[in-house]
Amino acid sequence: MADQFAPRKEDKFTFGLWTVGNRGADPFGPVVRPHTSAPKIVEKLAELGAYGVSLHDNDLIPHGAADAEQRIKDFEKSLKDNDMVVAMGTTNLFSHPVFRDGAFTNPDPAIRRYALQKTVQSIDMSVGRFGAKIYVFWGGREGSETDVAKDAMDAVKRNRECFNYLTSYCKDKKYDVKFALEAKPNEPRGDIYNSTTGACLGFIATLEHPEMVGVNPEVGHETMAGLNFYHVVAQAIEAGKLFHIDLNAQKIGRFDQDHRFGSEDYKNSFFVVKLLEESGYEGPRHFDSHAYRTEDMDGVWEFARGSMRTYKILAQKVKQFAADKEIQALINKGQKEPMAKYSKDAHKKLMGEKFDIEKIAEKGSGYEKLDQMLFDLFTGVRK
Amino acid sequence: MADQFAPRKEDKFTFGLWTVGNRGADPFGPVVRPHTSAPKIVEKLAELGAYGVSLHDNDLIPHGAADAEQRIKDFEKSLKDNDMVVAMGTTNLFSHPVFRDGAFTNPDPAIRRYALQKTVQSIDMSVGRFGAKIYVFWGGREGSETDVAKDAMDAVKRNRECFNYLTSYCKDKKYDVKFALEAKPNEPRGDIYNSTTGACLGFIATLEHPEMVGVNPEVGHETMAGLNFYHVVAQAIEAGKLFHIDLNAQKIGRFDQDHRFGSEDYKNSFFVVKLLEESGYEGPRHFDSHAYRTEDMDGVWEFARGSMRTYKILAQKVKQFAADKEIQALINKGQKEPMAKYSKDAHKKLMGEKFDIEKIAEKGSGYEKLDQMLFDLFTGVRK
Amino acid sequence: MADQFAPRKEDKFTFGLWTVGNRGADPFGPVVRPHTSAPKIVEKLAELGAYGVSLHDNDLIPHGAADAEQRIKDFEKSLKDNDMVVAMGTTNLFSHPVFRDGAFTNPDPAIRRYALQKTVQSIDMSVGRFGAKIYVFWGGREGSETDVAKDAMDAVKRNRECFNYLTSYCKDKKYDVKFALEAKPNEPRGDIYNSTTGACLGFIATLEHPEMVGVNPEVGHETMAGLNFYHVVAQAIEAGKLFHIDLNAQKIGRFDQDHRFGSEDYKNSFFVVKLLEESGYEGPRHFDSHAYRTEDMDGVWEFARGSMRTYKILAQKVKQFAADKEIQALINKGQKEPMAKYSKDAHKKLMGEKFDIEKIAEKGSGYEKLDQMLFDLFTGVRK
Amino acid sequence: MADQFAPRKEDKFTFGLWTVGNRGADPFGPVVRPHTSAPKIVEKLAELGAYGVSLHDNDLIPHGAADAEQRIKDFEKSLKDNDMVVAMGTTNLFSHPVFRDGAFTNPDPAIRRYALQKTVQSIDMSVGRFGAKIYVFWGGREGSETDVAKDAMDAVKRNRECFNYLTSYCKDKKYDVKFALEAKPNEPRGDIYNSTTGACLGFIATLEHPEMVGVNPEVGHETMAGLNFYHVVAQAIEAGKLFHIDLNAQKIGRFDQDHRFGSEDYKNSFFVVKLLEESGYEGPRHFDSHAYRTEDMDGVWEFARGSMRTYKILAQKVKQFAADKEIQALINKGQKEPMAKYSKDAHKKLMGEKFDIEKIAEKGSGYEKLDQMLFDLFTGVRK
Repeated sequence: MADQFAPRKEDKFTFGLWTVGNRGADPFGPVVRPHTSAPKIVEKLAELGAYGVSLHDNDLIPHGAADAEQRIKDFEKSLKDNDMVVAMGTTNLFSHPVFRDGAFTNPDPAIRRYALQKTVQSIDMSVGRFGAKIYVFWGGREGSETDVAKDAMDAVKRNRECFNYLTSYCKDKKYDVKFALEAKPNEPRGDIYNSTTGACLGFIATLEHPEMVGVNPEVGHETMAGLNFYHVVAQAIEAGKLFHIDLNAQKIGRFDQDHRFGSEDYKNSFFVVKLLEESGYEGPRHFDSHAYRTEDMDGVWEFARGSMRTYKILAQKVKQFAADKEIQALINKGQKEPMAKYSKDAHKKLMGEKFDIEKIAEKGSGYEKLDQMLFDLFTGVRK
Repeated sequence: MADQFAPRKEDKFTFGLWTVGNRGADPFGPVVRPHTSAPKIVEKLAELGAYGVSLHDNDLIPHGAADAEQRIKDFEKSLKDNDMVVAMGTTNLFSHPVFRDGAFTNPDPAIRRYALQKTVQSIDMSVGRFGAKIYVFWGGREGSETDVAKDAMDAVKRNRECFNYLTSYCKDKKYDVKFALEAKPNEPRGDIYNSTTGACLGFIATLEHPEMVGVNPEVGHETMAGLNFYHVVAQAIEAGKLFHIDLNAQKIGRFDQDHRFGSEDYKNSFFVVKLLEESGYEGPRHFDSHAYRTEDMDGVWEFARGSMRTYKILAQKVKQFAADKEIQALINKGQKEPMAKYSKDAHKKLMGEKFDIEKIAEKGSGYEKLDQMLFDLFTGVRK
Repeated sequence: MADQFAPRKEDKFTFGLWTVGNRGADPFGPVVRPHTSAPKIVEKLAELGAYGVSLHDNDLIPHGAADAEQRIKDFEKSLKDNDMVVAMGTTNLFSHPVFRDGAFTNPDPAIRRYALQKTVQSIDMSVGRFGAKIYVFWGGREGSETDVAKDAMDAVKRNRECFNYLTSYCKDKKYDVKFALEAKPNEPRGDIYNSTTGACLGFIATLEHPEMVGVNPEVGHETMAGLNFYHVVAQAIEAGKLFHIDLNAQKIGRFDQDHRFGSEDYKNSFFVVKLLEESGYEGPRHFDSHAYRTEDMDGVWEFARGSMRTYKILAQKVKQFAADKEIQALINKGQKEPMAKYSKDAHKKLMGEKFDIEKIAEKGSGYEKLDQMLFDLFTGVRK
Repeated sequence: MADQFAPRKEDKFTFGLWTVGNRGADPFGPVVRPHTSAPKIVEKLAELGAYGVSLHDNDLIPHGAADAEQRIKDFEKSLKDNDMVVAMGTTNLFSHPVFRDGAFTNPDPAIRRYALQKTVQSIDMSVGRFGAKIYVFWGGREGSETDVAKDAMDAVKRNRECFNYLTSYCKDKKYDVKFALEAKPNEPRGDIYNSTTGACLGFIATLEHPEMVGVNPEVGHETMAGLNFYHVVAQAIEAGKLFHIDLNAQKIGRFDQDHRFGSEDYKNSFFVVKLLEESGYEGPRHFDSHAYRTEDMDGVWEFARGSMRTYKILAQKVKQFAADKEIQALINKGQKEPMAKYSKDAHKKLMGEKFDIEKIAEKGSGYEKLDQMLFDLFTGVRK
């Protein structure tokens, strides 16, 4: 019997080249795993059932590499051979020391121009050559450890200049691409500007071409700040701004863990999958995570397998939840009723209404019962 | 000699009635201080040098009070006698048990309508009678402990319906008022929707009358999530959306402490005052905080005095910082240079520029030195 | 067919009177549920399958109650009628305003003496009359919001004086009781002394009768600080110091939530149950938690039912995990080998050993695979 | 006029070789600063006024270096030439991939033996040759990302075996050294065993030679978990267990920042210095921190200068605080009164005492006033 949780192309699972390619270095120790080439990653992920990959420019072409064109060709061949797509591209604006005080928000205008030039080149490759439909921006170095020397309002202005430039460029080139901003509260900077997906949504509203720019929320990044990731993604979807998503796992209030999706906070992971499956989101289910440093390459591929499997197990639980009549009956269906829009008449009616609030206040929500039913369903005890 | 740190009307210091009126109850113990009437609070705050007060409807008129009109009149008399203003009004949509699962986002449409009716009545009082120019919305009960039974996208929609209604109402009434949304990540709910000021900015962009709606960031609320409050406020000001501010103090990652402004994170408090003083913000410097539960009423008034004194000491440090030539010389002035806007010509120039990034990358920022100079200045060692 | 997850006496499930008795007040709103008397709570919990209850002195006898003896008798009758025990007693040293700056560590020696007197009376009741074998100390008010006026070393000394007094008293009375210290990092105080279970273990080592004193770790309290509760409890058990445990649920870095056990961090809850079930711990499985404020009394009893049910579902998963041969084979059994004890000979041998560490370092741990197998088992996908 | 804040030998300021030697790599970028040799670091720190250095074995002798003896000699010469001491030694048990799943607690007994062998060699060098009086243990890799495969009680046992071995070894060698355990909650592991200084104190109580083992609390590590570092250190000193201290700065709930001492939480830094200066602690004031990644080598030396300067400015504030009669008068001096020890007579007296607790409860603490006076003193406004 076929494994009902085996990934299929239509599941749209994608991985960053840097995820299964992560070699396990951390602030207290060096790499522990061998290098895997981009074509080999593509081949292996295809074998495991993925739909595509995403990449930073430097994931494919290391800084200063002389054989850029050959690398691109080998990569394109592997994509074709393995029926894989590049679903998303992004720029590495954080590794090179020149970016240590920021790229788009760097106080030095030459560095800002260099960052823009590098981004244009990366867009030309990812979007222009590989056909990525989404371009992600993670401004990992856009921030500060001390605010003594930089005006945080300048940072917003500089960021905006760059985004306005790039949207205009893409429109001029007629690129079929959308931008997705990825927030993070801190690390590697003490504090990063645009620290939450909410901040990104607020920032987007001030751009020249807001319709072209959305968000790429990451489980780990919002969770670092203790925010409810399900709530974060819900706001983004409702606003028509969920252009991409980064799935992984993280404990609140600590370093960026990038663990296997679903390996922390099983419950919130369920709600996130529920939202993606039921809201009509059609973008990639993208994993931005890596295997524990304790793993060898076998562990890396188990990690990749597990990421997709966990998603599918959760998706199956979501279906079961939706089909469970007892559960659905306990969720108040009347709650979808909209509020009247303001008009003089509607207002008169509203202000004249009498409410027996003490009576209404007596009614319990039944959430303890429902939440326990979810636990039973999640554990397989409830069939 | 007059105290240079004594508050003056033009400093625009305001306090919520609930702040100095806080009686010290907490989840593990009852009130420890006597009730102080609203007129008495106004009188005492005027004596201490405040500019005005803010209030929830129920701070003045407890739920179900029979003597509402008399309370209003006594309050108005005290304002007049003491040359005090109501700078901000807001609605208590969190105390009554009827709101335990939310007000504007409650699954029960009757409760949503009641919340709207109550808000209209409160606006009529605060804005219509007392002349408040700012109306704050803190949706403290809009959230969840479990997401099993409520769709977080519905919460956004319901919230929007209510805000669209209320802006239309205020426009129809020709009220001279702006709305300011106050974010909070959690408490009293497990997770609150619109959890950050950023989320509010994103939400505002989806409203019918976004120009009428801004934000009221609170030190404590953003700090609970570990965000850099100075960054948060900078984004809001830069977007033209800082309509009000709640000053207090909080440690990251714990319950809502509402401590005296400046009593935690001296350094970030300095940057916040710097921003308010130098950005042209002209709104109230509003304290939303309360005295430690260990205090009696003497302690409460010391708390109020200290809140304003701390702000003024920090404002004086800000001036010293701006006037310090050595410090200012170390802050890169060239950094204000704007990026070219996109055009075919500008683009050609950008793409043709050569950067010696290894060379540029060698240059240090000098932030350790500057940050230490700030410490010296802050401690009074640097004159 | 009988429900395999129905609680039985031998499961030793206990609840604080204050848990199902919690009426839903929080810092932003009053009570929402009716009062339930202690005898009624005992009766209802017995019906649901609990083994016993725990109590603060004031849960049974409110401060200043004139009918203490009658309350005690009614309570004893209900215990007897319902075959329930008092498994644990504790003192309320946090509600009355007199304790607002601490009880055992209060700067005022009269308050410290009063706290001691109150504790003795409570021990006489809980241990002397009701036969509780465990007495818990939670010093909720022992802490500070500012350290400007209290020496934190004095707090340790004062605490020690009280514990030395009380252990001597119990020994003198020949009470068959052990003390269990409960840590908490903050709330209601800004910072609480003995902030973690580790700190308590360190403190216990400095007491006159350390053998009589252990710990009562609480899921929520350690989790507030982001600590791994499974690790915390493991250290306590290994040291022979786990005398009691408080089961509930909490998100990291926020207010004290006291949610239903297992309703947050499903995975860590599994490991905690694994530890309790497999380590030989024979004490109560005590729930220190309460129903969401959204609930009415039906929800409260669902909460109680769910607490026990969740534990039993997890205990069943623990058994399945232990019986899963494939999983057990992947867990390195050789790892139990002890290190040689130091001796000149052993040392010579150790220093002479050659290690091919590059070779050893190649081996992966297989934890990604195992962790995914746990997910499969947890969700019921793995049979 | 001489700078009153210039460091002197008797201030006992020490730096790890790895601190000013830090080259700025982080999880998202490579090194940005040149290598500085150990002898050069010693020379430069001496010039800046430091008392000594500390080191990991591999700070001096990289893994596999062929010229170990020459490196040792050059280092010894530099120490002598510059009148510097090695105040503390420690072992690098975290960098090499072999330790990726732990050293002393690794499931593989061969790795545990290798870790022990490496530690003995490092002790022989640091203590035996360089005369370090303190040996620090930071078990950075002793932890887990998932608890699926390791028993946390085993970790405690394995750790204990190693510590018992090493204390026996040092006693046998008659080394004049004390061990200091350094706690950390997480990073690089998902969760680290012995996560807090409290946990270390509890663990020490279970060792064979507890008198030889104390703690080395680090500002950043306790602060990551949101604990009050002043409270943590106070418990350690009071227990006679503060053998060393790591001074730096950190925001709560994020990655290990290791910022310049005093650059975050000015206020808590003041209390920590107060404790060290007033408690009779005579050990090194050790900085375990590094310059921001934005800095070049000039910034590194500014960082070193600033670390010592900040300490001395705070120490001067501590003296001013102690000499301020108004402040001291407000701190209740009666609070030092000890509690009676238990005896039948003392008990009779205690139980007979009548307390007017309502009356006592009325008195406020005056902490708001005192805390504001501290702010005034800290900012130099209060002379």
